[in-house]
Amino acid sequence: MIVEGIVTSVDASGRLNVAPMGPIVEGDFASLLLRPFQPSTTFSNLSETRCGVFHVVDQVDVIARAAIGQLDVLPEVEPAIRVKGFVLTDCCRWFEFIVDRVDASNPRTLMPSTIVHRGERRPFFGFNRARHAVLETAILATRLHLLTRQEVLDAIRFLLPAVEKTGAASERNAFDMLHKFILSHYEDAT
Amino acid sequence: MIVEGIVTSVDASGRLNVAPMGPIVEGDFASLLLRPFQPSTTFSNLSETRCGVFHVVDQVDVIARAAIGQLDVLPEVEPAIRVKGFVLTDCCRWFEFIVDRVDASNPRTLMPSTIVHRGERRPFFGFNRARHAVLETAILATRLHLLTRQEVLDAIRFLLPAVEKTGAASERNAFDMLHKFILSHYEDAT
Repeated sequence: MIVEGIVTSVDASGRLNVAPMGPIVEGDFASLLLRPFQPSTTFSNLSETRCGVFHVVDQVDVIARAAIGQLDVLPEVEPAIRVKGFVLTDCCRWFEFIVDRVDASNPRTLMPSTIVHRGERRPFFGFNRARHAVLETAILATRLHLLTRQEVLDAIRFLLPAVEKTGAASERNAFDMLHKFILSHYEDAT
Repeated sequence: MIVEGIVTSVDASGRLNVAPMGPIVEGDFASLLLRPFQPSTTFSNLSETRCGVFHVVDQVDVIARAAIGQLDVLPEVEPAIRVKGFVLTDCCRWFEFIVDRVDASNPRTLMPSTIVHRGERRPFFGFNRARHAVLETAILATRLHLLTRQEVLDAIRFLLPAVEKTGAASERNAFDMLHKFILSHYEDAT
């Protein structure tokens, strides 16, 4: 099962990086296989420090902004308990991990990791179609080089109604931001 | 904000009904506006008993089966604390409510409700694209009379990859069940 969440990592100097991540987990996080792309800050940081924090979240704003490199203001964090790093103040659960091994033979690297501490912050808000539509749009925004323009625009047309019908201002704003990012990508390309 | 979850209700004799429901909530469930369609068992039960239990869930199997009337085996439940009814044993959170008012002037009725008790069972597993694709497919399956065949088949084609790529057996089985239900609807119609 792939869980879409957020990884925080730090470089050797302790500088924080926040990025979306879809690790493969078994059971209730009995195992954690991170798959950061290279090149990326997350890949560099995890390769260097061999530790980080994965967060289960139910908000999409940070994921959306981080996906398109517009996380101008970092979310609030607190020091992690067992590893060198930081825990997002707003999350449902967090998992502090040690990277056991780095397989960088492909652009999508493999980092089997061991969870050394886990904690809970707050309960799940609940399934919301708009939040998932924003998540799908954020994933689209990171894959513009792999998809045709028509595929992307068709997907956005499919996702938009759920945002309009089931979301609040936060979801509509995140979707609009991603939509503008995608449209400007195509304008720049023409 | 609309939250997709599950409502349990009982009839005058105490018989349990389990159904998907997408109420409108404000804040962290500061208010709850249920919107059962009529005719439906949920509408009849809530009109009659004026109480029920809304559940925030992160699994889609019960939603998928209930959406197409194939909940042959009811999920495990326990008695509610404050209202006449039942709480799903497997849920993230539950909200026991009293129906304040019933506006049945439209097929999609409006039932503003007051939450009289809330509880937590277990934390959120995490965002999973396959689970949301199943949720979207379950919603499609209940709207076949409102959509064209092409719209439905296009949607399924769009949703399928996330199920295959990010789900486990449970999500793939739920998606296959819904897909078969939808295809048999169209076969029956021709």
